[in-house]
Amino acid sequence: MNPEARLRELGLELPPLPPAVGNYVGAVSIGSILFVAGHGPFKDGKPQFLGKLGRDYNVEQGQQAARLVMLNMLATIKHTVGSLERIKRVAKLLCMVNSIPDFRDQPQVANGASDLLVAIFGEERGKHARSAVGMAALPFDIAVEIEGIFELS
Amino acid sequence: MNPEARLRELGLELPPLPPAVGNYVGAVSIGSILFVAGHGPFKDGKPQFLGKLGRDYNVEQGQQAARLVMLNMLATIKHTVGSLERIKRVAKLLCMVNSIPDFRDQPQVANGASDLLVAIFGEERGKHARSAVGMAALPFDIAVEIEGIFELS
Amino acid sequence: MNPEARLRELGLELPPLPPAVGNYVGAVSIGSILFVAGHGPFKDGKPQFLGKLGRDYNVEQGQQAARLVMLNMLATIKHTVGSLERIKRVAKLLCMVNSIPDFRDQPQVANGASDLLVAIFGEERGKHARSAVGMAALPFDIAVEIEGIFELS
Repeated sequence: MNPEARLRELGLELPPLPPAVGNYVGAVSIGSILFVAGHGPFKDGKPQFLGKLGRDYNVEQGQQAARLVMLNMLATIKHTVGSLERIKRVAKLLCMVNSIPDFRDQPQVANGASDLLVAIFGEERGKHARSAVGMAALPFDIAVEIEGIFELS
Repeated sequence: MNPEARLRELGLELPPLPPAVGNYVGAVSIGSILFVAGHGPFKDGKPQFLGKLGRDYNVEQGQQAARLVMLNMLATIKHTVGSLERIKRVAKLLCMVNSIPDFRDQPQVANGASDLLVAIFGEERGKHARSAVGMAALPFDIAVEIEGIFELS
Repeated sequence: MNPEARLRELGLELPPLPPAVGNYVGAVSIGSILFVAGHGPFKDGKPQFLGKLGRDYNVEQGQQAARLVMLNMLATIKHTVGSLERIKRVAKLLCMVNSIPDFRDQPQVANGASDLLVAIFGEERGKHARSAVGMAALPFDIAVEIEGIFELS
């Protein structure tokens, strides 16, 4: 199924293109590989979910943040390459979770992004390699930042 | 020399395929580039070396953890592409060390993984680009997580 | 304009090749993609800017550190591929900022590196995807470490 139709079927829509908070662009391709910048949980141009996992947010809230991050990333990809249909395979995510030193559930938080990708693209095309790790701090104090690598058709 | 024969010569063997602790896979290739997920120091399906460098483990213990991480990563690669013989070049590692804020010896810890790769694949094929950095927290509180990029033949 | 001529025009020069502080190399290419190791702010072979953002350095000092990191990275790239002229496109940076837990201006710090790349290579060739994130600790306690992905001609 077309991933944008699938998004609508899930009751979701892509947010507006998130701002680049610095002198950079959202994604750059080399051949068929798209390298996507670190994205945050923006809504209406403003960062959401400000705080750290293990103190300000629980795992379920972290998953919601990760899901919102992924919608922002998909908005960037659509803007950059024209259509989500061009994503042949989700290859790799680096899920960076704003963590107090004893928070240990980064993988569960990252599933908020990974589950969404599998729901949209299916198992074969959507399932990816991933790291999920705990950061000391993130821009604006956002709870989650994710960067990604995608194969384009 | 064949890298699996070399492993045996070093008295090492690959552990069983480590579990994916989330909705993801161990590695995805785009063309000849293999992007490998973040791996931890698993043994018999259980995470080992739980704690932070600079407090719970010293550099030598961190190196042992990094070496165990790399054996897990090689098990994933063998499972994904069929044989370690298909690794044409180790290209890049991101070595993430669970660190208290004043631990500064991440490169020495990461050498536990890098030295093993050079021992198995030799200088030309095994020597790689690398980052070694200090994380606030990691899944299960593992001491080291490593992700990698490999060139396949 | 040739990037090395542009460097001179900016009154800058490449530092000597920075040391690899471990068993690794500065950069490895797969096809036309160059994966560059994490670099630090070295001068005359010694790490500079030792300390954390939000406590030991302010944003402007962090930008100076990021700029120095990038000059070191360009020295590595020139050494590895022969000439900066071979950089067809700066694709992606991961800017890792040594941060106390409530430092939130990693993007501004990272602009020290990104602005330099755009000044040297121009908008089309120099502007890149990027993540800017806060690390618990870095080797030698350096303020900034950056790794990168470049397209070669």
